[in-house]
Amino acid sequence: METPMGLLVVGSIALDSVETPFGRTEEALGGSAVFFAVAGSLLHPVQVVGVVGRDYPMGELQRLGQRGIDLRGVTVADGESFRWSGKYGFDLSTRDTLETRLGVFANFRPVIPEAFRDAEFVFLGNIDPELQLDVLRQVHRPKLVACDTMNYWIQGKRTALLRLLQEVDVLLVNDSEVRELSGDWHIHRAARWVLERGPKFVVVKKGEHGAVLVEPGRTFYVPAYPLDDVFDPTGAGDSFAGGFMAYLAHTGDLSSANLRRAMVYGSAMGSFAVERFSVARFEEITLADVRARVRAHKDLVHFDLDADL
Amino acid sequence: METPMGLLVVGSIALDSVETPFGRTEEALGGSAVFFAVAGSLLHPVQVVGVVGRDYPMGELQRLGQRGIDLRGVTVADGESFRWSGKYGFDLSTRDTLETRLGVFANFRPVIPEAFRDAEFVFLGNIDPELQLDVLRQVHRPKLVACDTMNYWIQGKRTALLRLLQEVDVLLVNDSEVRELSGDWHIHRAARWVLERGPKFVVVKKGEHGAVLVEPGRTFYVPAYPLDDVFDPTGAGDSFAGGFMAYLAHTGDLSSANLRRAMVYGSAMGSFAVERFSVARFEEITLADVRARVRAHKDLVHFDLDADL
Repeated sequence: METPMGLLVVGSIALDSVETPFGRTEEALGGSAVFFAVAGSLLHPVQVVGVVGRDYPMGELQRLGQRGIDLRGVTVADGESFRWSGKYGFDLSTRDTLETRLGVFANFRPVIPEAFRDAEFVFLGNIDPELQLDVLRQVHRPKLVACDTMNYWIQGKRTALLRLLQEVDVLLVNDSEVRELSGDWHIHRAARWVLERGPKFVVVKKGEHGAVLVEPGRTFYVPAYPLDDVFDPTGAGDSFAGGFMAYLAHTGDLSSANLRRAMVYGSAMGSFAVERFSVARFEEITLADVRARVRAHKDLVHFDLDADL
Repeated sequence: METPMGLLVVGSIALDSVETPFGRTEEALGGSAVFFAVAGSLLHPVQVVGVVGRDYPMGELQRLGQRGIDLRGVTVADGESFRWSGKYGFDLSTRDTLETRLGVFANFRPVIPEAFRDAEFVFLGNIDPELQLDVLRQVHRPKLVACDTMNYWIQGKRTALLRLLQEVDVLLVNDSEVRELSGDWHIHRAARWVLERGPKFVVVKKGEHGAVLVEPGRTFYVPAYPLDDVFDPTGAGDSFAGGFMAYLAHTGDLSSANLRRAMVYGSAMGSFAVERFSVARFEEITLADVRARVRAHKDLVHFDLDADL
């Protein structure tokens, strides 16, 4: 049997305390690498590189590891784990960060284990762009590199970020980030600004308004799957990235048609993420549920012009 | 040759003065019935019922009439025409109404000419729901009735509006309106609330975030066509309604598959409306342009699952 394509994520591993209008959770598994890996591993094995403190509930992480997540790149460091707490407004479209305690994440210097350096698919979660560049110096010849970033780095590490963009294939960010990066409020123009600086594709996540894949000369739009009850939006974007990258790694196909399918798998994973706190929903579902939601996505947007005017 | 299905719109005929970040226009053709008719007539003849003052530029209206708009239902009354002026914010997502002068529109009592009373497709633009009900008493046996409304009537004429809903097939409103009407901020739940009160379908327009068709048990989403330069959003919703209804009237088919196509034609018309001030863009284009944009819509959302996991 063929060895599956390696899929590597480097990012945060956190403990999230979240309050929404529907409830609250304390110190639940969170962080970009965790959401990415738990969502992605429904489709394809995921290799994780990150750091936790000695207080991290490694048993819970290892339980998730049994789902096809390789944790050999997770370092346990002296100190406290990264903690984030936030509170969402009544319609879940706004959130306030109550507290961010970086702990051992403040000194995170990703070291890619030898066993992961041949990964063909690499996702650089939202960390300092200099560290993202450093990861790229450690991996051999990835077939596809995607990265996320945030306003903090766009403002504070712009030069490093622009250098990073020259080396990545996909920038995967939310709408406010691509606007701030490009200085253009118009998302499609902003995405094309990015395309001129290195990436071959830009994925712009717009939360409840879906996501857009911008390629040179072609755009694909996938709506957010309409859920009756959104419970907690935390991690939706990283779960989207996990579904997107894992679908590509599993199929090994970078055609435009397949990138579109990957967007739909990403959107499906984002929709599962928000149905429960933390990664709880992913522990309830199987590939069959994912496929059913992907088909529901198709029914949501499909129309035919066979009987047209 | 078969007589085409009659398509009737009752609504406002106005003179709009609009300022956007890109320019301004003074006393240009506007109003719900005008945008509806000019967009719709690209697909199918439209019958208009409305009122103007003696100061209205009837020559301009008649020029448009040559495109398949029957103006026999337009009454010229003593007094000033309805005037609206507004100013849009830098990203066109907010607007301030600077002035509304109802003029002869304040005493508008729609009288449907005998020649229009057999219309199979009826669109009740945003006027007092008691007047919308009165229109329904004048038409014979329409095949499909759609209506629009606004927050002013939702607040001030709720009883009449709920009575109207019992007699219409399609409610076509924007997101803030369906939220206010239902008291539920969640658009899909709000739309289902409406479905329990009469209409068979609800169309929710979300501006730059597209539009949703909610049927019992099935939902269709069409994104707004991504334009590089949105010039003036005024009239986009009424142009959407014109495209939607004219497509249905032209095809005479109310199947779910055809309603979806009608949504895409509506979205295409909305996208043309915003490319110029007033109805100017519709005077530049032909059916071929509309069809090309509909095909571009398909490319924007299409994906296939033939090669799926």
